[in-house]
Amino acid sequence: MEISELGEFGLIERLAKEITTKNASTLKGVGDDCAVLAPTEGMRQVVTTDLLMEGVHFDLTYVPLRHLGYKAVMVNLSDVFAMNAQPRQITVSLALSSKFCVEDIDELYAGMRMACEKWGVDIVGGDTTASLTGLAISITAIGEARPEDIVLRSEAKPTDLICVSGNLGAAYMGLQLLEREKIIYNEQVEKARKSGSKEQMELLRDAQPDFSGREYLLERQLKPEARGDITDALREAGIHPTSMIDISDGLSSELMHICHQSRTGCRIYEERLPLDYETAAMAEELNLNVSTCALNGGEDYELLFTVPLTQNDAVSSVKDVHVIGYVTEADKGLALITRDGGEHQLKAQGWNHLKP
Amino acid sequence: MEISELGEFGLIERLAKEITTKNASTLKGVGDDCAVLAPTEGMRQVVTTDLLMEGVHFDLTYVPLRHLGYKAVMVNLSDVFAMNAQPRQITVSLALSSKFCVEDIDELYAGMRMACEKWGVDIVGGDTTASLTGLAISITAIGEARPEDIVLRSEAKPTDLICVSGNLGAAYMGLQLLEREKIIYNEQVEKARKSGSKEQMELLRDAQPDFSGREYLLERQLKPEARGDITDALREAGIHPTSMIDISDGLSSELMHICHQSRTGCRIYEERLPLDYETAAMAEELNLNVSTCALNGGEDYELLFTVPLTQNDAVSSVKDVHVIGYVTEADKGLALITRDGGEHQLKAQGWNHLKP
Repeated sequence: MEISELGEFGLIERLAKEITTKNASTLKGVGDDCAVLAPTEGMRQVVTTDLLMEGVHFDLTYVPLRHLGYKAVMVNLSDVFAMNAQPRQITVSLALSSKFCVEDIDELYAGMRMACEKWGVDIVGGDTTASLTGLAISITAIGEARPEDIVLRSEAKPTDLICVSGNLGAAYMGLQLLEREKIIYNEQVEKARKSGSKEQMELLRDAQPDFSGREYLLERQLKPEARGDITDALREAGIHPTSMIDISDGLSSELMHICHQSRTGCRIYEERLPLDYETAAMAEELNLNVSTCALNGGEDYELLFTVPLTQNDAVSSVKDVHVIGYVTEADKGLALITRDGGEHQLKAQGWNHLKP
Repeated sequence: MEISELGEFGLIERLAKEITTKNASTLKGVGDDCAVLAPTEGMRQVVTTDLLMEGVHFDLTYVPLRHLGYKAVMVNLSDVFAMNAQPRQITVSLALSSKFCVEDIDELYAGMRMACEKWGVDIVGGDTTASLTGLAISITAIGEARPEDIVLRSEAKPTDLICVSGNLGAAYMGLQLLEREKIIYNEQVEKARKSGSKEQMELLRDAQPDFSGREYLLERQLKPEARGDITDALREAGIHPTSMIDISDGLSSELMHICHQSRTGCRIYEERLPLDYETAAMAEELNLNVSTCALNGGEDYELLFTVPLTQNDAVSSVKDVHVIGYVTEADKGLALITRDGGEHQLKAQGWNHLKP
């Protein structure tokens, strides 16, 4: 169905029907000039926002809309967890070009609802409008935390242990894989077109690339998970991080934020960078340095945090958390100790959309 | 200066330097994964968001960036005032194509800061990213109100008076004026190019259209003001509206929202539609029906609200507020009484970007 058949209000009504709110703090969701919230007394509130643009942040030739919706929500929840807060509400704004039909938007919203349901988050408002070009998705997330639970980037102290959750570089490898298949596919289409073979073209239309053995990389790229399970586990283990950030632009870049804002240095060990087997195998195949991918790949959506040295035993026993180094005085700089014992200064080559 | 010279983090740092926060409820603004707020105890919070896309919501050939920034903030504050709340914080996300330089972004932010300063609002976060095409601006505004002060769209009751602030249709006329001048200018450029006259081209480059006598229309289009002064005045006069909405898509459309959500009808009078002299003169010149412009023009950012009939005297004495009709039972429908006494059903021809 064409979106123009429904119009803006029709589309909003259709989407709103599927949206129910569950949080006690959500008094009124979609349907007025503003949503109305009743923040929990004594709690702090955290707010974050992300704007995703087609062609810059996602490529619809290989990203299913349902996955895109899921990811768009998760990247915002990841920021909320990085404050050690619980996400409660989001608003969603979409700008749609005429190439999208109503069913596309249903898919996108289905993915967003799935991500919200996973963490008990309410969709409380938004804006739906036209775009002359591609799709734009803007999400704002609101979360809550007790004042004493909030973790900033700026409170890391020398001797603190540096920890990361999960593993690094897999999402970046997933992107390389998808980009490679896209190029191969386009070349085949071009070839078939030149040869004029209708049969060949039809075969290509239904062709599905073989990603077997690489499913994990694709999942990390297409369907990332915000690590609220890690902040839960730390709380249960009685661990309060001194600083925390989520890894969206690559470990190096995020570590530089923590050190810069905490006025410290750091020392991390290449051999301790957590890697998945598939990441390593794919890096080998693509002739890439796997450590560089882990340090600068981006889109990991893992948590990078620091804990006091005294919590070494406690943090080491938390599942899926890895100690990769420690915080130093600022004058020691940001050091990466390579496998051969060499010392290098960390550089942020992280994702930076505005750099040429 | 090219934005790429600064990069994303450099640009954020440059913008953040100019931003100071003033609200007691803003504990931490730009600079971490999330902003941290301390909502005032016992208060409700309202949240609204808007996404503005170049080519759909604004045309940079005639909209100065400083005005655009101001307007982008004001349209969100307008939604906060329409809940009878006070705006406190906003987040700002920008997607920028390579045609913009750092000074452009400075201008855009200068306009946003000016709008924020006017209403004591803090910029607490955002996202800055690249765009393959035009400019996208996504703003989320957060406000506060006492629970008993909040006004929804859904509580209008039969016999309530229907009121609007300011006057209607002026912003729409301003847009017509700008669009007309753009066409004339483009035609002149085309003509000069065909004639090959360099002199003519240079004259055109510095040409400024003569808008004298039309300044008010331009101001309403380019620099709208959210009507927090009206909600203040109503509070001072002891008037609590039963329903309220801001007029962004045109009076007809907004009135339909109130009647639909309140399950009522309405009866408004054409002769009571508040019009500015310039609006009427411009409509005459363009051969447009001025009432149609007032009903469906859009972008007025005035407030439409209802008050109990018993407050007729009180509301009539509030400056810049006009009673245009009253609320009826739902079965009476939505009626416009024309100057000649005829009765017409109201139709929403309001701005609907997703309609063909």
